[in-house]
Amino acid sequence: MFEPWLIAPIASIISILAGLYFYYYIDKQDSGTDKMKEIADAIKEGSKTFLKREYSILAVFVAVVGTLLGIILPEPIWLNANPIENISLSLAYFFGAVFSALAGYVGMDIATKANTKTAFAAKKGLNKAFPIGFRGGAVMGLTVVGFSLLGVSIVYFLTGDAKMVLGFSFGASALALFAKAGGGIFTKTADISADLVGKIELGIPEDDPRNPAVIADNVGDNVGDVAGMGADLADSYIASIVAVMLLGTAISPLGETMLIQIPLVFSGLGIFASIIGAFTLRIGENGNPGKALNLGTYLTTIIFGIFTFLASYYLEFPLELWGAAIVGLSAGIIIGFTSDYFTSEGKTPLIKTAEASKTGSATNIITGFSYGLQSVFPPLLGIGIAAVVAYYLCYPLGGQGYAFYGIGMAAIGMLSIVGLIISSDAYGPIVDNARGIAEQAGLGDEVIRITDELDAAGNTAKAITKGFAIGAAGLTVIALLATFQAEVTLALGNLVANGSMTLTTAEIESLVSLSLLEPKVLLGTFIGIAMPALFSSMLMLGVGRNAERMIKEVRRQFKEIPGLKEGKEGVKPDYTRCVDIATTGALRELLPASTVTIGVTLAVGFIGGFQALGGFLAGSIFSGLLLALLMSNAGGLWDNAKKYIETGVHGGKGSDAHKAAVVGDTVGDPFKDTAGPSINTMITVMSLVASLFAALVVQYNLLGILGF
Amino acid sequence: MFEPWLIAPIASIISILAGLYFYYYIDKQDSGTDKMKEIADAIKEGSKTFLKREYSILAVFVAVVGTLLGIILPEPIWLNANPIENISLSLAYFFGAVFSALAGYVGMDIATKANTKTAFAAKKGLNKAFPIGFRGGAVMGLTVVGFSLLGVSIVYFLTGDAKMVLGFSFGASALALFAKAGGGIFTKTADISADLVGKIELGIPEDDPRNPAVIADNVGDNVGDVAGMGADLADSYIASIVAVMLLGTAISPLGETMLIQIPLVFSGLGIFASIIGAFTLRIGENGNPGKALNLGTYLTTIIFGIFTFLASYYLEFPLELWGAAIVGLSAGIIIGFTSDYFTSEGKTPLIKTAEASKTGSATNIITGFSYGLQSVFPPLLGIGIAAVVAYYLCYPLGGQGYAFYGIGMAAIGMLSIVGLIISSDAYGPIVDNARGIAEQAGLGDEVIRITDELDAAGNTAKAITKGFAIGAAGLTVIALLATFQAEVTLALGNLVANGSMTLTTAEIESLVSLSLLEPKVLLGTFIGIAMPALFSSMLMLGVGRNAERMIKEVRRQFKEIPGLKEGKEGVKPDYTRCVDIATTGALRELLPASTVTIGVTLAVGFIGGFQALGGFLAGSIFSGLLLALLMSNAGGLWDNAKKYIETGVHGGKGSDAHKAAVVGDTVGDPFKDTAGPSINTMITVMSLVASLFAALVVQYNLLGILGF
Repeated sequence: MFEPWLIAPIASIISILAGLYFYYYIDKQDSGTDKMKEIADAIKEGSKTFLKREYSILAVFVAVVGTLLGIILPEPIWLNANPIENISLSLAYFFGAVFSALAGYVGMDIATKANTKTAFAAKKGLNKAFPIGFRGGAVMGLTVVGFSLLGVSIVYFLTGDAKMVLGFSFGASALALFAKAGGGIFTKTADISADLVGKIELGIPEDDPRNPAVIADNVGDNVGDVAGMGADLADSYIASIVAVMLLGTAISPLGETMLIQIPLVFSGLGIFASIIGAFTLRIGENGNPGKALNLGTYLTTIIFGIFTFLASYYLEFPLELWGAAIVGLSAGIIIGFTSDYFTSEGKTPLIKTAEASKTGSATNIITGFSYGLQSVFPPLLGIGIAAVVAYYLCYPLGGQGYAFYGIGMAAIGMLSIVGLIISSDAYGPIVDNARGIAEQAGLGDEVIRITDELDAAGNTAKAITKGFAIGAAGLTVIALLATFQAEVTLALGNLVANGSMTLTTAEIESLVSLSLLEPKVLLGTFIGIAMPALFSSMLMLGVGRNAERMIKEVRRQFKEIPGLKEGKEGVKPDYTRCVDIATTGALRELLPASTVTIGVTLAVGFIGGFQALGGFLAGSIFSGLLLALLMSNAGGLWDNAKKYIETGVHGGKGSDAHKAAVVGDTVGDPFKDTAGPSINTMITVMSLVASLFAALVVQYNLLGILGF
Repeated sequence: MFEPWLIAPIASIISILAGLYFYYYIDKQDSGTDKMKEIADAIKEGSKTFLKREYSILAVFVAVVGTLLGIILPEPIWLNANPIENISLSLAYFFGAVFSALAGYVGMDIATKANTKTAFAAKKGLNKAFPIGFRGGAVMGLTVVGFSLLGVSIVYFLTGDAKMVLGFSFGASALALFAKAGGGIFTKTADISADLVGKIELGIPEDDPRNPAVIADNVGDNVGDVAGMGADLADSYIASIVAVMLLGTAISPLGETMLIQIPLVFSGLGIFASIIGAFTLRIGENGNPGKALNLGTYLTTIIFGIFTFLASYYLEFPLELWGAAIVGLSAGIIIGFTSDYFTSEGKTPLIKTAEASKTGSATNIITGFSYGLQSVFPPLLGIGIAAVVAYYLCYPLGGQGYAFYGIGMAAIGMLSIVGLIISSDAYGPIVDNARGIAEQAGLGDEVIRITDELDAAGNTAKAITKGFAIGAAGLTVIALLATFQAEVTLALGNLVANGSMTLTTAEIESLVSLSLLEPKVLLGTFIGIAMPALFSSMLMLGVGRNAERMIKEVRRQFKEIPGLKEGKEGVKPDYTRCVDIATTGALRELLPASTVTIGVTLAVGFIGGFQALGGFLAGSIFSGLLLALLMSNAGGLWDNAKKYIETGVHGGKGSDAHKAAVVGDTVGDPFKDTAGPSINTMITVMSLVASLFAALVVQYNLLGILGF
């Protein structure tokens, strides 16, 4: 019999095929002059080297964690009547990690191909270059969602157990966390060093080939932004699906799978909508790339709405669940557009921040930071309202369990079109790189103007997708918090059933309600609030340390290589040395922050018990969303304020206002590209760890043993 | 019969007398040369003008709010069988506002006297100048706590109703909020403008008399820092006392007042301890002022511990409550010292931030901000642990009600020595001003060196007291959250009793438990999280706008007044103009942020009901503590890193590293002196508003009326 959920693997496979189609489309484009190929090769080489070294370190880590997981989960293997479960979970975890690594690799590979081809096509005009940039992004977008949903489907098909899918999700997220931390540190190390020495100290243009850090900077776009944002959205995507599957399991009568299938069906249909969006997206002769990207988003959204409505109607899914998904999707778009308001040209925040640059970098930073603080209000309100509407919409279906399922559906809805979102997002670094190659290969002012225009559209798309990513992560982690609660309830129920505990149903309900006035919850919350701050600080200090090393190297090269500063014919800086420094540094810095994240989560659970752990998750969600929004938006605002001044306002390039704005932009770099976007993944990983270990934490925790 | 709580008014009166004694001690010191008197008069004039104009605006506001309060609280006057209650509450509110204003005025008055006397005494040596600076601070410290506790005692004596004390507390806090916002904007407007044009653009020293903003800068220290921090601690102080009185009322059998008296007794004993500490604090010939301040703190703490132990023993108060107070006090000191770690010379954060200045202002800011993020961890953990320990310590006394009472006692303990804390704190701006006067009046290098040493001790004291203030506010607002819950429980109970609602006790318990998985609580929390960010951003943008106006004026004066830049004999800038700009701007900017705070609190309550309001309070506590700690510590770190470089490290004054550090310091100014410290007051005000309106919100709210 054809089960509806099979739409998911089918859509996944089609998505991967569509990605392949775009891949060959890109592959057959002209890579340009020898000089361009040489630059592109250097970028590709650097990116591959980084990923290879990163993955070989992570392989050890993944192997260790996966083995440990297999030994103690779902319950300690020596206590488990069915130890095959332990092996399955371990395998699911490995599978998730490998899929996540693969998605990062594919994205990086195509991005480093598409950049030079986009630059070369720009010689023939905007409407020739745009599709290459976008389709390069779409390879990433479609394969990432394809692989993700296929992975979920395979694990579910083989085990029939949503808990195993949780293992898969954890594998994917844990790898994503490391990859994003590492990539984020790499990219900003290079970016800051290139800007500080090149632009500020020597006054040479961005992407100038004399700058020894320029290749490292371009490599960073690929290993940080492409692989990074893709991993971010992919891990929220998988996590939201698994959260809803688990919530569905908790409220479904035995043998009934509709509620487990719905998230798979909706996600599959979302992929179809994204594929249609990606194929129809194009611009005319004098088209506006930013508008084209937005139109693509609208179209995909509408198609998704129609598809899922029809599917719900014919498959007799409750329409309330469809409603919740649409609420989530609408909230995502609204959140995206408010992010856009806070970072875009023509709007008050950017105008004021640019103006403040006239009185120096301090006022530029204060103003940008203040608007960053303000920008958290609309998305937090949006996430809160979406959650509440979804809750009340679905509550009548059968109480609180359904209500949380509804919140999960809102997350699913928001993430349904993620294939297109990742495509628009990966487009950004590709055209950014294209601009770099055009500058370094001396393709002339007109080509640079066109790549600049492509780049500007990329930045707008980025602001929107970042808001989207944070909103989606917000709803996903709320759903995961509910999942955690469901797992704890189940575990407590089991303990009562086997006689190790005596609790009434009402007592269990009260215990798992995560009351803010329960001291363990409160303590957990306070620690949770501090975690995203600690995590961000570790990453940013890592960038700082790393950038210091690299800045010294760049300065040394300019001083010691004769003729380099003057741009003497044939004199080339030592690019590889800079790539090496960034690589080694990033790899050294990525482990501590990520292991602290997982370690503290487990420590809070096994010391404070499930109530402390629940509070901890909630606290980290609260401050995580706040800091992620603040850092992403303030960073984007500084970046765009600088770009705005570069168009000639307030004295234009080289003016004091511009110098001040460059400082703001540099401060914003690790905000928006290292710490900000890693926080989402961090809170997702924490939530997944908590759900995985829920049953163990309920049984074994220090405060519990001490009688509190 | 002598009731134990009468210790409170007695201690208050002695405290005010001790303050008066110090006042006359200061008054009879020599004010120095005519030139010094002239400068001091200008500062005093500016401060008085500002306060006068500020208070005349606030008087209108207070009158309106007080009248409205009297009309609708404790219940609408047309429904209240005993309308005298309404009048009492209104009067208590006015009384609180007037007391708060008076405390600010006294502090400002003595600070503007003590500054020049300290500077003049510095000619005779460090050990002559230090006591004047400290005792100037002590006038402020002792009178503020004296007035505060006296006010609480009077209201309690006249009404015998802790609820009326809540009105008093709200009056004091609301005025403090406006005063801090206004003062904070004033002081940083002047500071930033003076630094940017003077130090960065023209390279003239700090406090140079040629700088038109220099008097405004000194005025700012008085209206911002003296009045500001005093108000901050005073309002937490009053709020913690009233919270514990209300929690005591909720759990006491009718007619039993011990639990209502205990906070008054402990606070009274804390005042005695502070007075002893203030009188014994001194330094020897070559003493270290920083050490003297710390020793004073330790001594006061120990005396408080002994006094309260003896009192608890003889008055037969449960010793667990004494334990909770000591837990709070210890936590306060530990939190203070971790703040010190993150901002002090010789410690890693400062060394690294100073080092990062070598690669420019961007790396300086990234590093300082990162350590600021890290610095939130220990205090949040400390507050959390203190709350949990106090909870479990007092739970056995009689369940959850006592447990929360215990958390309140921890806040009382932490705030008990606030008389001494405010004294040390107000010492800072006095010696800062003394340094300014010494520079402007040309008292020579040796005097400046001495005032610099006094100033450095003031900065360390400030870091510690800020940590202390935030910790105390944290525990206080947790206690206020419990108070809110108690008020809601009471209101629901009343509605059940009069038949308008049918709820079982268990249902009421579940409703008021503030479960994080209850959608209204969640929505409230999300909005609450955003509030401190919004509030900070409004204040900081206010500073930015205001500073822009003032910078233009300072630049204009340097350009248009012939001979000013060169320091020609007899040429003086127009100081008054700058003071005027800062005043007008600050007054224009202080109302919106503060009214939004109160307005949104009421809106959330009357739209979402008490669950949303509870979540809202919790959310604002979470993000408020995070942001307050981050901003205060990062700001302090940047400031001290700059000072460290000025001692000659990394090239010393005038080097590129120094210029970079000055930018960091300027960014930190509104962080640490405008937004950071106002957040405490903001969350206290929100908590008080919520408790005051709890009963009304329970009865009337939109979501409730719509049936959710």
